[in-house]
Amino acid sequence: MRIVALAGGIGGARFLRGLLAAVGPQDEITVIGNTGDDIHLYGLKVCPDLDTVMYTLGGGINEEQGWGRTDETWSIKAEMKEYGVGPEWFGLGDRDFATHLVRSQMLTAGYSLSQVTEALCVRWKPGVRLLPMSDDRVETHVRITDEQGTRAIHFQEYWVKLHAAVDAEAIIPVGADTAKPAPGVLEAIAEADVILFPPSNPVVSIGSILAVPGIREAVAAAPAPVVGLSPIIGGAPVRGMADKVLAAVGVEATADAVALNYGSALIDGWLVDTADEASVAAVEAAGIACRAVPLLMTDVEATAEMARAALALAEQVRK
Amino acid sequence: MRIVALAGGIGGARFLRGLLAAVGPQDEITVIGNTGDDIHLYGLKVCPDLDTVMYTLGGGINEEQGWGRTDETWSIKAEMKEYGVGPEWFGLGDRDFATHLVRSQMLTAGYSLSQVTEALCVRWKPGVRLLPMSDDRVETHVRITDEQGTRAIHFQEYWVKLHAAVDAEAIIPVGADTAKPAPGVLEAIAEADVILFPPSNPVVSIGSILAVPGIREAVAAAPAPVVGLSPIIGGAPVRGMADKVLAAVGVEATADAVALNYGSALIDGWLVDTADEASVAAVEAAGIACRAVPLLMTDVEATAEMARAALALAEQVRK
Repeated sequence: MRIVALAGGIGGARFLRGLLAAVGPQDEITVIGNTGDDIHLYGLKVCPDLDTVMYTLGGGINEEQGWGRTDETWSIKAEMKEYGVGPEWFGLGDRDFATHLVRSQMLTAGYSLSQVTEALCVRWKPGVRLLPMSDDRVETHVRITDEQGTRAIHFQEYWVKLHAAVDAEAIIPVGADTAKPAPGVLEAIAEADVILFPPSNPVVSIGSILAVPGIREAVAAAPAPVVGLSPIIGGAPVRGMADKVLAAVGVEATADAVALNYGSALIDGWLVDTADEASVAAVEAAGIACRAVPLLMTDVEATAEMARAALALAEQVRK
Repeated sequence: MRIVALAGGIGGARFLRGLLAAVGPQDEITVIGNTGDDIHLYGLKVCPDLDTVMYTLGGGINEEQGWGRTDETWSIKAEMKEYGVGPEWFGLGDRDFATHLVRSQMLTAGYSLSQVTEALCVRWKPGVRLLPMSDDRVETHVRITDEQGTRAIHFQEYWVKLHAAVDAEAIIPVGADTAKPAPGVLEAIAEADVILFPPSNPVVSIGSILAVPGIREAVAAAPAPVVGLSPIIGGAPVRGMADKVLAAVGVEATADAVALNYGSALIDGWLVDTADEASVAAVEAAGIACRAVPLLMTDVEATAEMARAALALAEQVRK
C-alpha cells in the first residue's frame, strides 16, 4: 500500500513512528514535510520540521523535548552568547548544527532542498520517503500587534520567542504563491492508496503544505481516501499552541471545527478523541466520516493503534 | 612605544604573550597576522592563525595543543563523520565553529576580514591590535609530487593531512599577487618604533605576509629597527615542520640561513638560541646584528625574556 502523509514537526513525527509500527514492510510511506517554519540562522538554512521527522524516525531525536538531537552539546550556543550574536531564543545544539551545515553547504553548491533531504536521509534511514513540500523558499509569517505596532514576524519568533502569547492576527505563508511542489509530491499524492493528515498543526503545518499551489488541489482530486486525525482534544491542542493560530484563521479550537475547516472537499474521514465523541455527529453532518478513538500518542503502540484506526477508516470511506 | 609584530599561528601567538608580559601599558602592539593558511570548510571561512593569536592572547586557547579552544566539545566533528562529510583530517571543535560561523556570517553581510577580526576581538580583548595581512583572499598552496602526480594542494592539506611527509617543491601564495595590505597595515609599519618577526614559520607565516605586495617594501623602508627571532634551534624547527617548507624555497634549516634569507635589506637584528652561538658570526658578516640568547618558549616568563632581548637588540641597532 502506498501511503502519503502530510507532516509538521513533533506531532507529525510521532504519528509517523506509530504509522511505521502499524504497517507492513511492503507498504511505502511518502511524507510531505512542512518547510514553512524553515528559518535562516547564522547564515545556515534550518528546517525544523524536516529534521524533527528525520531525527524521530532515524533514532536521533531528543525524546523528552521532542525536537533536537539526543546526547546534544551546546557549546556553540554558549559561544554565540559570548560573541553577543543572537537570536538567543532559538535553541540549536552542536549536533543539530552539523545537519544545518551539511544542508547549507549542499544548497550553496546548487543542490535542491529535495536532494539535500534525500542525502541527509541516507544517514538517518527514516523508513519513509521524506519530501519537502517545496524546494522553493516559503516562510510562514505571523501578523501581530504589540507595543511596537502591527507587524509580521517569522513564525519561529512568534512560536519560540513569544510563545504565542500575543494574538496572531493573520498567518502569511510568504512565498507560497509562487512556490512549486517539490519533485514527486504531486505524483505521490495522485498515486497514493491512502492519504493521511497526522495530528499536526492544521494551520502552520498542514495548512502551510496545502498553501503551496497545486497540493491542495491534488489532495482534493486524489482517488485515495483522505483521513485526518484531530490535533485538538477536549477543546485544546494536545501540545503546542494550535489554538492561537486557529483563531487567526477564524477556526474554533475544537475537534469538529478543524475537520469542517478542512472540509469534505479535502478530507473523507476524521478521527476525534473519545473525549470528543459528542462532536462526531457534527463532522458526519458535514459529509466527513468520523470515528472517536483514543488519540493520545502516549507511546509507540498507542500511536500505532491510532494509525490503524485511520487506515481502517480509510478503507471504510474508500469509494 | 609602537611595536609591530608579524605573526603566524602557535609560535607567533606564544611569542606575543611573552611580548605583552615584557612591555608596559603605554606600549602599543599591532600584530599583522598571516591569513595565507585560511581555508574554507563546510562553507565557512576558517582563519587558523588569526584565531590562534586571538584565542591565545584572549585566554581561550587549548594550551596543550596550542590551537583550538579550551573546554572544547567535538559533536559536529562526530556528526560530520556520520554524514560522511569531510575533511576528517581537519579538527574543528564546536566552540571553534562558533567563531567561524560568526565570521562567515559577517563576511557574507559585506564586512571585511579586518572589520570581522576587530569585531571578534571585542570579545577576546587580546591586548593587541590584530590586523589580517590582507582583506583579500590569499591561500598558500604547496606543490608536491606523489603517486597522483605533480599537483598543488592547500597548505592545510599538506601540513595537517600529510604532516609534510612529502617534499614541498614550491610554496605558492595563490592570490598574493593581486592582494592589497589590509587597512592600517602599511601605516602601522611606517609608524612603528620597533618591528619584530616572532619565531614563526619564515616561509608559510612570515613569508606569506611579506608576499602581499607592499608589505615587504614597507618593512624594508621603515625607519624602525627590524629584529627577528630564529624559529630554528640546533638545525631543527622548535615545533612544526618548517624545515620541509624551507627546503622548498632553497633555504637550509639553520638559524643563520633563515636570517640570511630575510637579508640585511629587511632585518637589522637577529636572535639565535644559545645552542646556535656558532652561527652568530655568519649572520653578523651579512650585516645583521646577532645575539645568542635562550629561545625556548617554555613559559611566559622565558618568552618575555626573549621579547626583552629582541627589544634590547632593536635599541642597539637603531639608527
